Amino acid sequence: MTYTLFYAPGTASLCVHWMLIELGVDFRAEAVDLEGGAQKSADYLRLNPQGRVPTLAIDGEAYGESAALLMLLSERHPEHGFAPAPGSTDRARWLELMVYLANNLSPPFRDWFYAGKDGAPEGAAHVQALAKAKVEAVWTRLDELLTDGRPYLLGEKVTTADFLATMLMRWSRNMERPATSWPRLAGYVQRMRARPAFLELCRREGLTEWLNP
Amino acid sequence: MTYTLFYAPGTASLCVHWMLIELGVDFRAEAVDLEGGAQKSADYLRLNPQGRVPTLAIDGEAYGESAALLMLLSERHPEHGFAPAPGSTDRARWLELMVYLANNLSPPFRDWFYAGKDGAPEGAAHVQALAKAKVEAVWTRLDELLTDGRPYLLGEKVTTADFLATMLMRWSRNMERPATSWPRLAGYVQRMRARPAFLELCRREGLTEWLNP
Ligand SMILES: N[C@@H](CCC(=O)N[C@@H](CS)C(=O)NCC(=O)O)C(=O)O
Ligand SMILES: N[C@@H](CCC(=O)N[C@@H](CS)C(=O)NCC(=O)O)C(=O)O
Repeated sequence: MTYTLFYAPGTASLCVHWMLIELGVDFRAEAVDLEGGAQKSADYLRLNPQGRVPTLAIDGEAYGESAALLMLLSERHPEHGFAPAPGSTDRARWLELMVYLANNLSPPFRDWFYAGKDGAPEGAAHVQALAKAKVEAVWTRLDELLTDGRPYLLGEKVTTADFLATMLMRWSRNMERPATSWPRLAGYVQRMRARPAFLELCRREGLTEWLNP
Repeated sequence: MTYTLFYAPGTASLCVHWMLIELGVDFRAEAVDLEGGAQKSADYLRLNPQGRVPTLAIDGEAYGESAALLMLLSERHPEHGFAPAPGSTDRARWLELMVYLANNLSPPFRDWFYAGKDGAPEGAAHVQALAKAKVEAVWTRLDELLTDGRPYLLGEKVTTADFLATMLMRWSRNMERPATSWPRLAGYVQRMRARPAFLELCRREGLTEWLNP
């Protein structure tokens, strides 16, 4: 078994890249030059019909959708406990949270960053205004999750939801109200960024912003 | 173990209601009066903090997000084979497709139907225009999936992705280009609507539109 991750620094591939480092498995990381349009090349579209990163190739088959890739990796490497085991009571909460993030947070971020490209430029400001409201509503809800003092979104243990959510929080860093303006999320982010695998990820992707002070 | 489904006819709860009928398990279905605003009552918000349907209560715990509920039910009732088994080669495709639908299709439908409520009414037309383009791009991709003659989205067997996708296709019935304008999707929808559990679902939810001729 070999993994190849097609990625671009700081993008939706970040959470998968991070998790692969956490797992300590062998993988190859192949950069996709988004600015140069490499994601729209015929070769890449064969791997990822939407022309997006991430793509994870496993034994010659290529898969997309970051949240799905995290779930898949958690299933393939259960010994790390990045997802509650099937049948456990936490399992349902984990599934709900993964889908909640994929459904309520990733799409408005796409709109926030791509409204003028995916849609008509003259409508972009309206699309972005709604996207911003949706993103902020999610920060409020995630902040509430942490009111009981739990260190991670689902409780005492880090799960795939934390890699996904932290990546998405990072994307808000230049917004009017970044996720870290919510007090509990600020502490949460510090905790997640302190992980050695996160530092290694930033080193490999060349990310110098949004590190712990 | 008892299931209670909080639902409203024809909405995002439909796919979960359908699957519960397919599974043949005992469950209670409790209607939520969306027009009357029951989804914003304090009692309901305790079950579903976003004030949306569906909610599925299992042994006193309540969960949301239709795609997550389908995944959970497939895991709790593996003997029906509505999801490829963990570790199987189809598993990765199934996860990818479930997240793809949750990420690329459910959110634009929310925008299509709720743009003027979730956001500023004056921006609604712009939001809806982008939503429509996104929805149609997904129909194109799903139609392509079926070019190899497979009867269901993932191959020879019905999976949770089919319940989710068919529900979403139904929502397009009054759009300019309903999903059934795509030739392979038209055949697919016929197949899905012919299932006895779908007919039973329509009977229970009182749905009289969008049945097979
Ligand atoms: N739902 C996808 C979204 C992927 C996505 O939108 N990726 C962006 C980077 S953050 C991309 O590839 N953009 C390049 C483009 O759309 O041309 C996922 O989570 O994997
Ligand atoms: N992502 C959610 C979406 C649920 C959703 O938007 N439900 C709508 C009906 S289709 C609803 O409850 N609307 C009532 C409201 O928002 O007030 C899911 O798939 O379960």
